[in-house]
Amino acid sequence: MQQVVDTGTGSTTSTVASGGATTAVPETGNIPLLDKRSDREQVPPISLLPLPDAESRPGDRAPRSPSDLRHSWSWERSLIQWLHRQVGSPRVIIVLWDGTIVGRPQSAIGQINMQSPSALRRVVWNPDLAFGDCFASGELEIQGDLVEVLTELNRGLSRAGERTRLKTPWRLSHSSHSLAKSKSNASHHYDLGNDFYKLWLDEQLVYTCAYYPHSNATLEEAQVAKLDHVCRKLRLKHGEHVVDAGCGWGALALHMARKYGVSVQAYNLSGEQIQFARQWAESEGLSSRVQFIEDDYRNLAGQFDAFVSVGMLEHVGPENYRGLGSLMSRALTPTGRGLIHSIGRNAPRPLDAWTEKYIFPGAHPPSLREMMDLFENSGFSVLDVENLRLHYARTCADWLARYEQAMDRVRQMFDERFVRMWRLYLAASSAAFANGDLQLFQVLFARTNNNTLPWTRVDWYQDD
Amino acid sequence: MQQVVDTGTGSTTSTVASGGATTAVPETGNIPLLDKRSDREQVPPISLLPLPDAESRPGDRAPRSPSDLRHSWSWERSLIQWLHRQVGSPRVIIVLWDGTIVGRPQSAIGQINMQSPSALRRVVWNPDLAFGDCFASGELEIQGDLVEVLTELNRGLSRAGERTRLKTPWRLSHSSHSLAKSKSNASHHYDLGNDFYKLWLDEQLVYTCAYYPHSNATLEEAQVAKLDHVCRKLRLKHGEHVVDAGCGWGALALHMARKYGVSVQAYNLSGEQIQFARQWAESEGLSSRVQFIEDDYRNLAGQFDAFVSVGMLEHVGPENYRGLGSLMSRALTPTGRGLIHSIGRNAPRPLDAWTEKYIFPGAHPPSLREMMDLFENSGFSVLDVENLRLHYARTCADWLARYEQAMDRVRQMFDERFVRMWRLYLAASSAAFANGDLQLFQVLFARTNNNTLPWTRVDWYQDD
Repeated sequence: MQQVVDTGTGSTTSTVASGGATTAVPETGNIPLLDKRSDREQVPPISLLPLPDAESRPGDRAPRSPSDLRHSWSWERSLIQWLHRQVGSPRVIIVLWDGTIVGRPQSAIGQINMQSPSALRRVVWNPDLAFGDCFASGELEIQGDLVEVLTELNRGLSRAGERTRLKTPWRLSHSSHSLAKSKSNASHHYDLGNDFYKLWLDEQLVYTCAYYPHSNATLEEAQVAKLDHVCRKLRLKHGEHVVDAGCGWGALALHMARKYGVSVQAYNLSGEQIQFARQWAESEGLSSRVQFIEDDYRNLAGQFDAFVSVGMLEHVGPENYRGLGSLMSRALTPTGRGLIHSIGRNAPRPLDAWTEKYIFPGAHPPSLREMMDLFENSGFSVLDVENLRLHYARTCADWLARYEQAMDRVRQMFDERFVRMWRLYLAASSAAFANGDLQLFQVLFARTNNNTLPWTRVDWYQDD
Repeated sequence: MQQVVDTGTGSTTSTVASGGATTAVPETGNIPLLDKRSDREQVPPISLLPLPDAESRPGDRAPRSPSDLRHSWSWERSLIQWLHRQVGSPRVIIVLWDGTIVGRPQSAIGQINMQSPSALRRVVWNPDLAFGDCFASGELEIQGDLVEVLTELNRGLSRAGERTRLKTPWRLSHSSHSLAKSKSNASHHYDLGNDFYKLWLDEQLVYTCAYYPHSNATLEEAQVAKLDHVCRKLRLKHGEHVVDAGCGWGALALHMARKYGVSVQAYNLSGEQIQFARQWAESEGLSSRVQFIEDDYRNLAGQFDAFVSVGMLEHVGPENYRGLGSLMSRALTPTGRGLIHSIGRNAPRPLDAWTEKYIFPGAHPPSLREMMDLFENSGFSVLDVENLRLHYARTCADWLARYEQAMDRVRQMFDERFVRMWRLYLAASSAAFANGDLQLFQVLFARTNNNTLPWTRVDWYQDD
């Protein structure tokens, strides 16, 4: 017999489920972007029951202590029931190590297995950090579609926040973005090895939000469409000079040179990426027109017709926006155009602790209000803002699908903990963009008195 | 003989110009939007010389006192020389009542005639207010293309500001936007009489920035294109319910109902406009679907599929943005869309004193940063921002051209002072948008977790 604690009514009732039954997943319906990933159908449908027991715990690779086999105590069940309510009573059940169920199995779209008393205590004490830690270690297991379960948890949190008028307090980020620290932050993420990223990125290794011109576009097509979308917005003309701040593996810089006939200075702090980009440029005979520079964007000099930065602002830190604005102002010709492509927020809020610690040290997705520090004091006008949030939810979902297929190879490169950590990061990112917890802003700007640009955006949507 | 004071070198030299010569206007070149106004060619080309003298002063309709006939004093010439430098030594000469020239006639594109010592003193003492006051009274006369001269003055001011790192200090607006005060503010401007606006607006009386899909579009075409541009952004569907906050004479509300099959609740504080709009709706048989309400938008109730406000936010006051955000949040269905169309700034700055006093009491064009108060605290995501600054420069230029042709009739309705005041307002507005001193932002938004909208903007640019 299993105890079922319904946080909706607060009552503890008797058993609901029989041993071997499999419950079909209810349709969540309104996230078409996730339904489109046909290759994710290989993930088995959720089996809410049978519940985990001492003999077989799905995905549990951590050694178990004797205490993990004991019954849960009353205060532990009260605690987890309280936590379930705190996060907005999501349609996700929590199953304790002894089989106790919290939540409503009838309407659940997934389940979280707390494999040990210590996992419970850690998650209650410091959910921001411990949820990811316990998932990575296997002490916390998620059954069901990972993105959908995380999306549901995320929505629950939003509901709870609205109801109680809780707002995440605005904390100043204390991360350092000195030249040296920025280098080590970049290295933490981007120097994991090109072979690792080749397993699940598109063939051009574009590690930023893609642009899906239609719902059937592949990741490869969507990344090329994104590069063109950026170039069209910048209205690049043959022979112009462009600076690319934070160029990744070089796909955008090379695309601009190859297709739009511009010359590019491309900056990046990651040595591995720069090396890869240089070889790529050489293999295409573009080395004379695309210069890859292993340096901080803050050291750039000269004047350019266009300034582009795709996926770097997240790492710059709001305290440096005015400085970056001044730099862009010095770097742009009187008729120059600039485009900043960045993950963002609807309102200022720091990155969650787990992602900041393990995935993106020093990162901060800014709100539009915060981004204005780039433009307001540097003589720029914002010409255009486009929010591509749903495109990033889909991009992350596409990455996740490829990643899940390559997990055996990732395990050979790193370890199980790393495999699970990155799976959680990709799934949680997709969920955050799908929920509107994260945004993706493309901001186009030019000098205040630049009257040389076309008056409408029609040209961006005309075929070549 | 005339004294020429060159503020560039600071030296006072002897006579340059002979009596009857006419100097051609140098090309300013980079404001194509102003060159397109073929009907403005009727304005005579600038005649820098002959200079005004005691017998014939162009446009001088004010009675002259004996002191206006005396020679200028040395300190007056120093003062005006200082002022010319303070505003960035623009390519505009200042001619005093006794014929003294300040600035460089060789490169001037226009001239300002100070018709009296008192005009000089007032402009130096309080330029923000007195420039417009003296222009309206005729004590200060401008020769040359009014928009071009104002544009040049505006640019000079910007240059001066950059050089000296002067920033207009951020002052809190003390204007009241209570329900009663908002009503009287609106009445001041919009209740001047429909006949007055009919003289120079388009045939549908759309008194906001038009959208010129191509450079040959007429004002009429551009206003219809704007209405459609707004409706497309909102993705209106047949049968939906829309609220229009600040509906003017009703063109947008009626266009939405007529062409997109929606029903509309349209709010406006101006009794004259509402009366006109109701009659128009009746004449088209649209009264059942478009309800014109003479009330403050803050009193609206109910839920709508779209919230649209074109040219009202300027009158709301930043202290009310959070309140408007809450109201929009209450007013929109879960899948509702909102669009705010407003004059704006690159950075927070109060309206100039003259416009605030005579033209738009209580108005404040917000920066994007300020506008975020509408969205950040109300659960909205900004989906799209478009800056239509150049369209508004052209719109104002088109209005001005029609206005100038109708000035005799305006004079019959009001008086000479009014005629000149509104001519200055329209010309200065065109110049401010051309210079980037003012912006025009269209901001599209929806609830944070609304995933039902198309992923791209392609549909806005496809033909019907």
